[in-house]
Amino acid sequence: MKKIAVILSGCGVFDGSEIYESVLTLLRIEQNNAQYQCMAPDIEQLHVIDHLKGDVAEGESRNVLVEAARLARGDILDLSTVNAADYDALIIPGGFGAAKNLCDFAVNGAQCEINETVARFTREIHKAGKPVGLICIAPAMTPLLFGEGTQCTIGTDTDTAAAIEAMGGQHQSCPVDEMIIDTEKRVVTTPAYMLAESITEAATGINKLVDAVIEMA
Amino acid sequence: MKKIAVILSGCGVFDGSEIYESVLTLLRIEQNNAQYQCMAPDIEQLHVIDHLKGDVAEGESRNVLVEAARLARGDILDLSTVNAADYDALIIPGGFGAAKNLCDFAVNGAQCEINETVARFTREIHKAGKPVGLICIAPAMTPLLFGEGTQCTIGTDTDTAAAIEAMGGQHQSCPVDEMIIDTEKRVVTTPAYMLAESITEAATGINKLVDAVIEMA
Repeated sequence: MKKIAVILSGCGVFDGSEIYESVLTLLRIEQNNAQYQCMAPDIEQLHVIDHLKGDVAEGESRNVLVEAARLARGDILDLSTVNAADYDALIIPGGFGAAKNLCDFAVNGAQCEINETVARFTREIHKAGKPVGLICIAPAMTPLLFGEGTQCTIGTDTDTAAAIEAMGGQHQSCPVDEMIIDTEKRVVTTPAYMLAESITEAATGINKLVDAVIEMA
Repeated sequence: MKKIAVILSGCGVFDGSEIYESVLTLLRIEQNNAQYQCMAPDIEQLHVIDHLKGDVAEGESRNVLVEAARLARGDILDLSTVNAADYDALIIPGGFGAAKNLCDFAVNGAQCEINETVARFTREIHKAGKPVGLICIAPAMTPLLFGEGTQCTIGTDTDTAAAIEAMGGQHQSCPVDEMIIDTEKRVVTTPAYMLAESITEAATGINKLVDAVIEMA
C-alpha cells in the first residue's frame, strides 16, 4: 500500500492549513487505497487569526504542530523526525499557513524563504524521484523547492503568478477543476480555494491531484 | 434549494467538533444539491485540549463560536441570532465538543443539561416537524431534546448507551456504516467516530445520515 506524507501548517484557513482542502486530500488518499501520515514543523505560527472577525488575535500564540494535530485527530509526526525514505509521495494542502508558517511568502513575496525542515524533507522526497503535490497557495514554494522553470499553478491571480515567475517558476493559469503536472520534475499543482467557491468545487481539482500523485508514486 | 443548519461545537475532536465528521457532513450536503449554514453558541469551551499530547492546556481558553469559525472558513452565525424558520433541517456533528460545550454529558453523564441556545434552536426545528440528524456522541442529547422513548444510536458503547437509557432514550446498537431513524420523531443518528477507524469508514454512515435528513426535509 502506497504511503503518502501530508505536511500540515496549522488548522484554519487564515493562519494554518485550509481545513476542507486537507480533509478532502486525506479522504481521497484513502479512497485510492493508499495510506496517509500527517506531519508538521514544530514551530510557532506567524500569528493567530480570529476566524470569526478576520483580525489578528493580539497576544495569542499557537504552535503549528500542536494545532495541526487537531486536523490529524492527534496522529501526527514532528516533521524534523520524519525520514523521506518511508514515504512514496508528498502532498502539501493550502491555506494561509502554507504561506505564513511553511514559508514566509505571505510576508515577503518573491523574496521568501522556506522553513528549513520543510525544505529538507520536500527536497529529499523530490531527489528520490517521488512525486510532490501542492494545493492552493502552497505552489508558491515551487521554484525554491524544485528549481527554476518548474511548471506550477495557483489559479489565475496575476500578482501571485508574477511573484512565482520572479522566483524563476513557470506559472500557468488553471481552472479550479484542473491541475498542472510538470512531468519531468514530477510536481503536481491545483488552485483549490485560490478559486473554489464551494467545497464540492475544491474537491474537483484536489481529487484529480491526489489521483495523479498516487498514480505517479 | 433545501437549507440545512449545522451546529458546530469548536474545532478539533477532543474539545470541539470532530473535523472529519463536520467536513464530510458539509460535503455531502452540497453533493445533495442542498445548502448549509454553520452556526455555534457564543460561549467559552469547557477547556482546551493539546491535540498533540492529549492533555488539558492549562491556562488556555477558547471560544466555541470563534474556533468553530475555523471549520466554516469564517462563514458562521452566532446560534442565538438564528431563526429556525429559515432552515429545512438540522445536523449536529460529533466530537467531544458536542458533549463538553453543547451539553455537559462528558462531565455529568445522565445528569447532563443542554446549553439553552442549542436546546431552544433544536426544539424549534423539531417542533416545526423538520428532521434533525445527530452524529457520533451528539445523539447523547436525544432524550433531553426530543423526549423519552426517542430511538437513537451512539454505536455499541455500553456505558454511553446505558446513560442514554437512564435519561429515557431508547438506544439501539448500530454499525458504523448504518444509521437509526426514529420516523415518528424524525430524528436520525449514526455512530461515525464512536466506531470508525478511518475517514472513509466514517463517511459511510455520515453520507447515509445526510442523505436521509435531506430526503425527509
